[in-house]
Amino acid sequence: MQLATWGLLAPPAWAQVPALPRRVGRLMPIGGAEDRMQDRVILRRFVELCGGPGARIRVLSAASGDPKAAWRAYQGVFGELGVLHTAHLDITDVDHANSQDVVDQILDTDGLFISGGDQRRLMALLWETEAFRALHTAFHLRGCCIAGTSAGAAVLSRHMLAQGDTPRLPEKEAAELDLGLGFVSKAIIDQHFSERGRLGRLLSVLAQRPDMLGVGIDEDTALVIERGVGVEVVGQGAVTLLDGRQLRSNYEDIESRERLEMLGVRLHLLPAGRRYSLTPGSESFRRMPPILREAVGLLVAPGPIRG
Amino acid sequence: MQLATWGLLAPPAWAQVPALPRRVGRLMPIGGAEDRMQDRVILRRFVELCGGPGARIRVLSAASGDPKAAWRAYQGVFGELGVLHTAHLDITDVDHANSQDVVDQILDTDGLFISGGDQRRLMALLWETEAFRALHTAFHLRGCCIAGTSAGAAVLSRHMLAQGDTPRLPEKEAAELDLGLGFVSKAIIDQHFSERGRLGRLLSVLAQRPDMLGVGIDEDTALVIERGVGVEVVGQGAVTLLDGRQLRSNYEDIESRERLEMLGVRLHLLPAGRRYSLTPGSESFRRMPPILREAVGLLVAPGPIRG
Repeated sequence: MQLATWGLLAPPAWAQVPALPRRVGRLMPIGGAEDRMQDRVILRRFVELCGGPGARIRVLSAASGDPKAAWRAYQGVFGELGVLHTAHLDITDVDHANSQDVVDQILDTDGLFISGGDQRRLMALLWETEAFRALHTAFHLRGCCIAGTSAGAAVLSRHMLAQGDTPRLPEKEAAELDLGLGFVSKAIIDQHFSERGRLGRLLSVLAQRPDMLGVGIDEDTALVIERGVGVEVVGQGAVTLLDGRQLRSNYEDIESRERLEMLGVRLHLLPAGRRYSLTPGSESFRRMPPILREAVGLLVAPGPIRG
Repeated sequence: MQLATWGLLAPPAWAQVPALPRRVGRLMPIGGAEDRMQDRVILRRFVELCGGPGARIRVLSAASGDPKAAWRAYQGVFGELGVLHTAHLDITDVDHANSQDVVDQILDTDGLFISGGDQRRLMALLWETEAFRALHTAFHLRGCCIAGTSAGAAVLSRHMLAQGDTPRLPEKEAAELDLGLGFVSKAIIDQHFSERGRLGRLLSVLAQRPDMLGVGIDEDTALVIERGVGVEVVGQGAVTLLDGRQLRSNYEDIESRERLEMLGVRLHLLPAGRRYSLTPGSESFRRMPPILREAVGLLVAPGPIRG
């Protein structure tokens, strides 16, 4: 079993820090292809949200086809950003995911970064394991900041867009939903959104789950979700929110892969640089139409704790 | 000056038919690339709406860079569809557009088909001419059915999407609005919609004119608009309606080509084969959420008569 190795440091003294919430749990789904070479706005913000260069950051790269390479890439970037303590959360199989070693590593983390790859590969490894529960404990009780890019973003929600075609127009069951990590309980996250023209795909899953919010995140763009507080868009593109709570569709009347009729979807386009706070009286709160306040409320609502 | 020549027929006797509305004026914007070789569902429906094979159909091809070739192509197709009387509404210049000859041809038409090309070229020819007024008389008072494909669809609305980039995300003034023929007064029509990923572009103009309905029509797809009655989608794709009447955007606060924030857009996706009738009690009326009924009401509202 691998022991926690924090960069060049000895095993950490702060592993004994009491498990009190130091800050609100923050999530940071990233739409993939975040800048790792230039300004690295998103990764810098992640480090900041974790507590700055002194924060203990782990990289979970098991979604990747080559976890070691993915880890090394982020190790390099976080190093360049001045992070002192970066380690690989290297979960090799389900048994390992149930081990105390892995649990200890997870609970001893200020920020977890989940790399891209295949969200199903990651969930097959984590589902109903001790690691899964430890992630919830870390997030809900210890204020660990969790970011995920691409597949790592999709996996953050309870209802996870697992795979699927990207039809130009929405079709019944064009994409498959599966269970994800569940940090966001009322939204379904898609990534590479406007770059890969995934509106049709996200509308397809919204027809299936109109009680969910569809969240389409562009490349090099992140949605910072602060529990109970608000959201912020960081990076280069935008986040598209699709609210289907008043949707009328023909989902129940048609066969699989038939074209959907979708009436009454609400669309909000949130560009990078904007903040949407639920604090009454704030400038952004006043700017938001009530229907968007509700949608943001769904995003920042605490999900069920699965620890 | 060219005289009206109806295919192989002599000058028509029915030119003396009194100028009473024979049917409700119908519009048929087509998203471009309509099937002209196989089932030709859209062009067949156009012929039907004009009154069947006996209808007098004229082709206005002046938006095209090669009007004669465009006319010949449609002449062939309408001939294959059994139309007996097809003629070229060949308007050569602004003087010609002001001539009695052209006016007579327009008033002596059951169906006008406007080809693709450049909508600005067509409007430069027609703006404030007698031909322009005659088109309104033909449509509003004589029940002439007017179809337009691609540029010919864009030109049907009063506020016409003249040209513009197709940004992935909406930007202030990404596309330019100009004045069109004005048969639809409360909507802006875009074409090749999902094929060319024009959501960002249509949202851009919606931010400029949130009082308008954005109508995005896919290729080989048509929206049949029946004045005061309802709309129907015909062909292979879908029509995307964007309703910005409750939109909040940052349009006034940003510079040209800056990224737009757009909150509270309503999106309706109407697939081919669906009908949206404003007749209370009809099945489609019951299916429509009230907000969509309002939107369809805007589409079928009579515009100002410019005859």
